[in-house]
Amino acid sequence: MSIERSHTNERASKIVKHNGVVYLSGQVGDGESLSAQAIDCLGRVDTLLKEAGSSRQHILQATVWLSDMTYFAEFNTIWNDWVPSGHAPARACGEAKLAREILKVEVIVIAACV
Amino acid sequence: MSIERSHTNERASKIVKHNGVVYLSGQVGDGESLSAQAIDCLGRVDTLLKEAGSSRQHILQATVWLSDMTYFAEFNTIWNDWVPSGHAPARACGEAKLAREILKVEVIVIAACV
Amino acid sequence: MSIERSHTNERASKIVKHNGVVYLSGQVGDGESLSAQAIDCLGRVDTLLKEAGSSRQHILQATVWLSDMTYFAEFNTIWNDWVPSGHAPARACGEAKLAREILKVEVIVIAACV
Repeated sequence: MSIERSHTNERASKIVKHNGVVYLSGQVGDGESLSAQAIDCLGRVDTLLKEAGSSRQHILQATVWLSDMTYFAEFNTIWNDWVPSGHAPARACGEAKLAREILKVEVIVIAACV
Repeated sequence: MSIERSHTNERASKIVKHNGVVYLSGQVGDGESLSAQAIDCLGRVDTLLKEAGSSRQHILQATVWLSDMTYFAEFNTIWNDWVPSGHAPARACGEAKLAREILKVEVIVIAACV
Repeated sequence: MSIERSHTNERASKIVKHNGVVYLSGQVGDGESLSAQAIDCLGRVDTLLKEAGSSRQHILQATVWLSDMTYFAEFNTIWNDWVPSGHAPARACGEAKLAREILKVEVIVIAACV
């Protein structure tokens, strides 16, 4: 069972595939507001999953970190719109400060791939 | 390798099965005290794992979020009683505020299933 | 698909293997400084992965918890040196208080194994 990595630098690979499962590095988004960042972040997840031979319909587990839990309702509105009906992943959401002070949301995804 | 989801709403599936592995959404519990919530939370994990064709003997990885690390010893007492002898999972435990202010513990599980 | 556990006590197994994947319990390190703890922590990851028939070249996903995000740059210097060129895992890093107040970093690893 080989390991395929892409978008690899000295710190991380954005995509790692192994045995029909793809692991993405935690994705964040550009923008000032939580909504702007969430939309950009989930767009990056889409792009990476597509490149990995997967999609938002194939997510197994999503872990969401918010820099402040007061964003919870606002994030869920965007998240629920994004999740394909009938294909929601297992999810957990907790509060954690992120790599840069401006960052409000990070999404960590494990998905099935071909 | 198909994906089986159950207890699926617009946000999450409580159970996602793929390739012999089951991913549960982060589980929390009712109650006021940490102990009450932990016992209820682990009971929900039991119920979901059973439904998925797994059990607490088959947990591969457990991630525990406590809203305050001062609960660490109290949680471990309940956790250690719950874990079947010889079948403890890989575990990590850190502090994170949770979705609602009242919540003191959330447990995220990846397990093997038939 | 059997489950193999080792270094198992009443709370956790340091190593859990299933279906070609190894899950390690969150690893921390001894020392006062972030650098000392990070080096010790990653050494423990090396030792456990080797014992599991894996290595730092086979890490699929790494989740890093820092007790204070001001350690981010210092941790990355040590991390980048440790990661084998071309084999970086999917990674996420967030802030979380850890089990003991002195602890500054915890690393949670999922890796491929033979």
